[in-house]
Amino acid sequence: MSEQTETTEARATIGLTGLATMGRNLARNIARNGFTVAVHNRTAAKTTALLDEFGDEGDFVGSESLEDFVASIQRPRAIIIMVKAGDATDAVIDDLLPLLDEGDIVVDGGNAHYEDTRRREKALAEKDVHFVGMGVSGGEVGALEGPSIMVGGSEHAYETLGPVVEKIAAQVDGTPCATHVGPDGAGHFVKMVHNGIEYADMQLIAESYDLLRNVLGLDPAEIARVFEDWNSGDLESFLIEMTADVLAHVDAESGKPFVDVVADEAEQKGTGRWTVQTGLELGVPITGIAEATFARSLSGHVDQREAARSMFAEDPEETPADAIGDRDAFVEQVRLALYASKIVAYAQGFDMIRTGAEQFDWDIDLGSMATIWRGGCIIRARFLDRIREAFADEPDLTTLMTNGFFADALHEGVDAWRHVVATAARTGVPVPAFGSSLSYFDGLRRDRLPASLIQGLRDNFGAHTYRRTDKDGVFHTLWAGDRSEQDAS
Amino acid sequence: MSEQTETTEARATIGLTGLATMGRNLARNIARNGFTVAVHNRTAAKTTALLDEFGDEGDFVGSESLEDFVASIQRPRAIIIMVKAGDATDAVIDDLLPLLDEGDIVVDGGNAHYEDTRRREKALAEKDVHFVGMGVSGGEVGALEGPSIMVGGSEHAYETLGPVVEKIAAQVDGTPCATHVGPDGAGHFVKMVHNGIEYADMQLIAESYDLLRNVLGLDPAEIARVFEDWNSGDLESFLIEMTADVLAHVDAESGKPFVDVVADEAEQKGTGRWTVQTGLELGVPITGIAEATFARSLSGHVDQREAARSMFAEDPEETPADAIGDRDAFVEQVRLALYASKIVAYAQGFDMIRTGAEQFDWDIDLGSMATIWRGGCIIRARFLDRIREAFADEPDLTTLMTNGFFADALHEGVDAWRHVVATAARTGVPVPAFGSSLSYFDGLRRDRLPASLIQGLRDNFGAHTYRRTDKDGVFHTLWAGDRSEQDAS
Repeated sequence: MSEQTETTEARATIGLTGLATMGRNLARNIARNGFTVAVHNRTAAKTTALLDEFGDEGDFVGSESLEDFVASIQRPRAIIIMVKAGDATDAVIDDLLPLLDEGDIVVDGGNAHYEDTRRREKALAEKDVHFVGMGVSGGEVGALEGPSIMVGGSEHAYETLGPVVEKIAAQVDGTPCATHVGPDGAGHFVKMVHNGIEYADMQLIAESYDLLRNVLGLDPAEIARVFEDWNSGDLESFLIEMTADVLAHVDAESGKPFVDVVADEAEQKGTGRWTVQTGLELGVPITGIAEATFARSLSGHVDQREAARSMFAEDPEETPADAIGDRDAFVEQVRLALYASKIVAYAQGFDMIRTGAEQFDWDIDLGSMATIWRGGCIIRARFLDRIREAFADEPDLTTLMTNGFFADALHEGVDAWRHVVATAARTGVPVPAFGSSLSYFDGLRRDRLPASLIQGLRDNFGAHTYRRTDKDGVFHTLWAGDRSEQDAS
Repeated sequence: MSEQTETTEARATIGLTGLATMGRNLARNIARNGFTVAVHNRTAAKTTALLDEFGDEGDFVGSESLEDFVASIQRPRAIIIMVKAGDATDAVIDDLLPLLDEGDIVVDGGNAHYEDTRRREKALAEKDVHFVGMGVSGGEVGALEGPSIMVGGSEHAYETLGPVVEKIAAQVDGTPCATHVGPDGAGHFVKMVHNGIEYADMQLIAESYDLLRNVLGLDPAEIARVFEDWNSGDLESFLIEMTADVLAHVDAESGKPFVDVVADEAEQKGTGRWTVQTGLELGVPITGIAEATFARSLSGHVDQREAARSMFAEDPEETPADAIGDRDAFVEQVRLALYASKIVAYAQGFDMIRTGAEQFDWDIDLGSMATIWRGGCIIRARFLDRIREAFADEPDLTTLMTNGFFADALHEGVDAWRHVVATAARTGVPVPAFGSSLSYFDGLRRDRLPASLIQGLRDNFGAHTYRRTDKDGVFHTLWAGDRSEQDAS
């Protein structure tokens, strides 16, 4: 690298600092796509390792010092930071800032909280530096082979950045899985919701597996074949394919199905939690994501599980056969229930993106989000093409559930969905995501909700007032008095 | 008031500033209980009004200026702030501080977020002023006639404050519904969880009403009698009593049941949302509170409801009679389901308090929380005596569900609970809280959860690693390679 130090010339199209696995793979992806990429890492050994191992994949410019790194990039410079989200990001920004010029672009490719991104964007804008929060989905493999990329920040920054990210992203039907989502935190916000939807998707798959296993009594290998089969239809997706793969895997050491030797305590990283917390903040009912997040927490509560297990181990007396009838029919019912619940999860996720966009004045094109999730990322699925089409047909669609295609699917699946949730309740299989999705559907479609009773109670004990169905205004009943109604507008 | 100004002497036991309804009622409560209370409001008219209207109820010392107000209180001074939570609280604290002496006690009786309380406690401790976050539950009536009071802050502060709050609080069986919960934010934290549980309680009641109305076809007056009946048994509580009251009420203007003229769009204030956000932060699955909070949000989504209603209005073909059998039997099943779900809601709430106490090093006595909620507050109920007993019997109880009394209730109710959730799913009545509570119960009690599949998937697409059931360590399978297992510890 000393060579570069001596001959520093600004020849790289883009720079990337932070060469842990994600950063390294993203840098290789950029280089493989013909761009000259400047690379840097706090400890130089990783830079050297990257050049040694993969230097022949493209045109890398390695630098030991941050000064040389910055100097090696063409202006306006675009510099991607790939470090652990949080304080580390701020530290790198602080180090970079004195070396930058007006109009340069700092890109955070980590899993930052969108509020942090908004804060950083604002701070850097005051120094005439563009800050871009860039959500990158697809894990290590995606980073290398083509991720889904959600770019926030200014239009101006995207002019420089766009040609690179659209080239290195996954491509579906000739369309890149990368786009300019909107200003400041929009990219990281959408990435967060993506991860939340991923939580819901996986929980729904897990519940489907649990039902097939414990209601029907199928073994993992048989269930793997069911998922394989499902993957050739409407449910075709990366996660369904992967589920078949995991379920078919046999543990070499024990000879048992792999899924039976894995500890059943799931972990939750920050983004699922963030999504639900933000949904609460925005008042968007994202119940599927919430139940999925809580189901993971619950699985890790070892002491409580142990205590409850010893006390309530016995399953309901009702035999599964009683509840299910024909095997193939039940498999199909579970498939329909999974599909219907998945529609709800995505309806909730897109509701959240729309609401966030309104809240933060982002003007996000919902159809584009579906488009860039079709490839590269964990939730990639045939389904997303349908969502893209739905928003193309009806840009102002209030809820995905009522778009023709999805409405048909819900109409087709609703009886099975009801039957599966009822069967789970009767046979003791927990279906928090299936169940709450059905409740969401039933909640939205009904003429009257018992929320009227809640409003009445709140007025009675707390004088919280209520509105009426038959006239405008805000009212309060004198519950402890003569029970007359007061105008409380 | 000018009189006081001229003759300011420190004769009040306690001071209270902020004389909106809650503050005024709390001041009157203090005076009625024989304490001399100094009162102050930013605009003096409210102080004058209080003295004019209620001055004969006890010994008030009114002051127009904050200086006189502070001077009128015995040292160490205890001053309760009753203003809108947020910036207003900080503003009052800032105004007060220069007037205080070392060892004085500033009490925030508003609905502050416990993190704000922690921040304020820390800041004031540096100035040798005790800051107390005091949760007051019971609404306006409770404030006047005896609320439930959850006091955070130092032991030292409680020595001064305790005699007053324990006197003005509701009393049950000779025990005050007030206690020292723990340091800094503990009081407001517990108050927040109380409000979250209140959300769950009300949602469960609303779902019970909805089932009786729409599955059984009972009218509000008939359902009022059912709730009245329930109120004489295990479910006896303020909210059940109040539900009977609201359901029996007939709107004078239309002659219709009151509950039918109230708009079915519930509002959610901050504390329900805070509870769920904090539950997510702490990794405690409080699904009942989450579903209750989201159900309120959903009810307010008018556009989506309208769209979904027009598309999916038709109820399931299955006739209720099919699903329910005998009327009285179904009423009893709903009662049992309500009781079981309520046990889950409280189990989750107490789990959250225990986890919060561990997280923030608070050492909270869980039984005491049940004790002080038995009177004064919205969730007061016979039930809470049982919870008090449960923690008296088993101080280290892992989950309320496994305590003898509650375990018996769950065993007794579980078949009905399953039947009710299944019936709701089949007949199209949304039961997000009933359903998620049952899923929580089934999740905790089962031997194996499908979280193992989720861990397998996460290892497959993201190399997130997993643990095994049969040996210690952290592992990763080379999914894209030879599928051997690596030690990833």
